[in-house]
Amino acid sequence: MGKIKVGIIGYGNLGKGVEIAIKKSSDMELVGIWTRRDPETLETKSRTYSLDTILDFKDKIDVCILCGGSATDLVQQGPEISKNFNTVDSYDNHKEIPNYFEKVNKSATENDKLALISSGWDPGLFSINRLIGESILPEGKTYSFWGSGVSQGHSDAVRRVEGVKTATQYTIPKEDVIKEIRAGKDIELAVCDGHLRECHVVLNEGACKEKVKDMIVNMPGYFDEYETKVEFIDMEEFNKRECGMPHGGRIMRLGKTSKDHNQVYEFALNLDNNPEFTASVLVAYSRAVYRMFNEGERGAITVFDIAPKYLSEKTDEELRKKLL
Amino acid sequence: MGKIKVGIIGYGNLGKGVEIAIKKSSDMELVGIWTRRDPETLETKSRTYSLDTILDFKDKIDVCILCGGSATDLVQQGPEISKNFNTVDSYDNHKEIPNYFEKVNKSATENDKLALISSGWDPGLFSINRLIGESILPEGKTYSFWGSGVSQGHSDAVRRVEGVKTATQYTIPKEDVIKEIRAGKDIELAVCDGHLRECHVVLNEGACKEKVKDMIVNMPGYFDEYETKVEFIDMEEFNKRECGMPHGGRIMRLGKTSKDHNQVYEFALNLDNNPEFTASVLVAYSRAVYRMFNEGERGAITVFDIAPKYLSEKTDEELRKKLL
Repeated sequence: MGKIKVGIIGYGNLGKGVEIAIKKSSDMELVGIWTRRDPETLETKSRTYSLDTILDFKDKIDVCILCGGSATDLVQQGPEISKNFNTVDSYDNHKEIPNYFEKVNKSATENDKLALISSGWDPGLFSINRLIGESILPEGKTYSFWGSGVSQGHSDAVRRVEGVKTATQYTIPKEDVIKEIRAGKDIELAVCDGHLRECHVVLNEGACKEKVKDMIVNMPGYFDEYETKVEFIDMEEFNKRECGMPHGGRIMRLGKTSKDHNQVYEFALNLDNNPEFTASVLVAYSRAVYRMFNEGERGAITVFDIAPKYLSEKTDEELRKKLL
Repeated sequence: MGKIKVGIIGYGNLGKGVEIAIKKSSDMELVGIWTRRDPETLETKSRTYSLDTILDFKDKIDVCILCGGSATDLVQQGPEISKNFNTVDSYDNHKEIPNYFEKVNKSATENDKLALISSGWDPGLFSINRLIGESILPEGKTYSFWGSGVSQGHSDAVRRVEGVKTATQYTIPKEDVIKEIRAGKDIELAVCDGHLRECHVVLNEGACKEKVKDMIVNMPGYFDEYETKVEFIDMEEFNKRECGMPHGGRIMRLGKTSKDHNQVYEFALNLDNNPEFTASVLVAYSRAVYRMFNEGERGAITVFDIAPKYLSEKTDEELRKKLL
């Protein structure tokens, strides 16, 4: 059997991660990378092409992995590229998912393609664990924690405060809250109660620490409801801390099967590099899309529609023998 | 749409757990409990029947949940009952799963039924996480931890030691090892290195503590390779500790996506009551079997073959809107 032929659309951090992950998959080969930039300028040994040429590869790619951002790239590319290719994307604008699903579903169904939307870890693996947790323990509560990791929107908000040269905001789940849940304590928990927001701030010369801190911790909608820590550091220290893209999080389901019996279900990720991990999820799921397409599946699907076996390079027999 | 009609075969701890779990599922109803004992003797408000009558219910049950043990009950009942009913079981003799699968698959396929084997948490949820972990992070290692919980086989072994009145053996995963893996340390780990074995022992009058302890910790194949603790307690304390059936465990996948980037994937269960949780898994999976049977699926399947959506009472639209 030939290898699964994969195309990468978009070459930011996620696209680079997909490029790496495909090399680790013995059943896949990278056909090329398509970009809206000048393809000559991409720093990679893979073949690069202008996105304008993608239709020339209509029968040469089994699955396109869309690596653009949700806000502007995917809303356009998802419905468009699924007209001619099977696709996998990581569309993560949770509120807009139903709309996005409808659009991609229409395009893929009409054109006899299969398109997986909103894969990755949240949405993606976290969603699966929310579903399994509540299905197995219908009487209970689901808790979501994110971090430790950078929140891009909150970092931007801090950077806009007068006197701030640059800043990063780390979202950190509260360990003591997690421990309480794990111990079976059924708590009402707003997102702001479960997370600490830590701001690493470099000031402009002459800026007032007190004033900047005050502006940050009281910022409505961003920090006012949270426990917020502000740390002022110099540029050198800031650059040192910036080197990685760590992230992660945790889904917990605390359920009761009978009066005195708490059952704690927990799924956690601790990631040194967020885009590389997300990319690895997309690549495993592109295997599933390839196989399900070959079995006749069409239209838009989500991680909820995919049986675990489709993610693995192993045969069904091997899976039963080695992993069950 | 009518409710899913479920039958329970066997009424030990697992069967009792299934009875409870069905009540928590608004889309299911319990048709009855079938037993090899005198059905009058079961302490339950549900309807009870002799197992001899099961064929009278051939068209009145959508899914039978087989709640017997793997060693003697399921090997016989799995292939037999799947001739006339869709089934879900928790067959957990890992080495024999391929054989068992073949037998049940033959019986279910020939008789146009759908049979899910080896569901629960291990095999079951743990298996799914082993599969997803290694599929997403192909360069890495998977670690399995069990406990804290009672190991039945090891408890039996301690009870056979001369001078022992009764005993329970708790398997306890080593927290420091888990922390090392979580911190990204790639370690070679035999099962015996990751777990502590704790024996709670009540002695016969006049028995020698030293001698009993020595016999236990050096017992070949059971304890000699493990770090083993022996605690001598009196009967009152023993009975106090026996009241629950806690268990749990953890699957960890430590993988590298690139040279310096460790990614830690972790799934954990912390259960006050093992059979009730296993039962809850079986009940959610019986929903999947019912729905997949209605979609035309036949033969034997495992948890690897089941898309997450089938476990939920929610519609596909609701799942995308609320849980993705």
